[in-house]
Amino acid sequence: MEARVIVTLKGGIFDPQGEAIAGALGDLGFYDVQSIRQGKVFDIVLEKGEHEKVQEQLEAMCEKLLANAVVENYQINLLS
Amino acid sequence: MEARVIVTLKGGIFDPQGEAIAGALGDLGFYDVQSIRQGKVFDIVLEKGEHEKVQEQLEAMCEKLLANAVVENYQINLLS
Repeated sequence: MEARVIVTLKGGIFDPQGEAIAGALGDLGFYDVQSIRQGKVFDIVLEKGEHEKVQEQLEAMCEKLLANAVVENYQINLLS
Repeated sequence: MEARVIVTLKGGIFDPQGEAIAGALGDLGFYDVQSIRQGKVFDIVLEKGEHEKVQEQLEAMCEKLLANAVVENYQINLLS
């Protein structure tokens, strides 16, 4: 089974990397960019299992390692 | 308008960070993980414009700054 987990900073958290990228895009002439926030993607291949159990397992992975729940949100998309 | 750009390493490119995370998940007891590859997400807010033009502009941003086309692929999702 394959899953894509997307980890992004929560709304109020300052994202200096995103701001730097937005600034660089402005310097390159992309004046329409208002803001950018950068996050992480994890493309995970897992052994086959029940949909619900795999979903639970992915949530546990996010809570324990992939995301910092204090400052980050995560989305889990089971692809197959 | 809002867009989400996802940048991932191309298939054959070694991903030591992904391997380290897969190893750490194994150490935490997640034995069902076969592999992980890590990528980047950019959540971009842009000024309103024609769908096609914004799409073109996002492609140009990927080619020039957000992705390294030699070793990375990118997906552009216009959300609104």
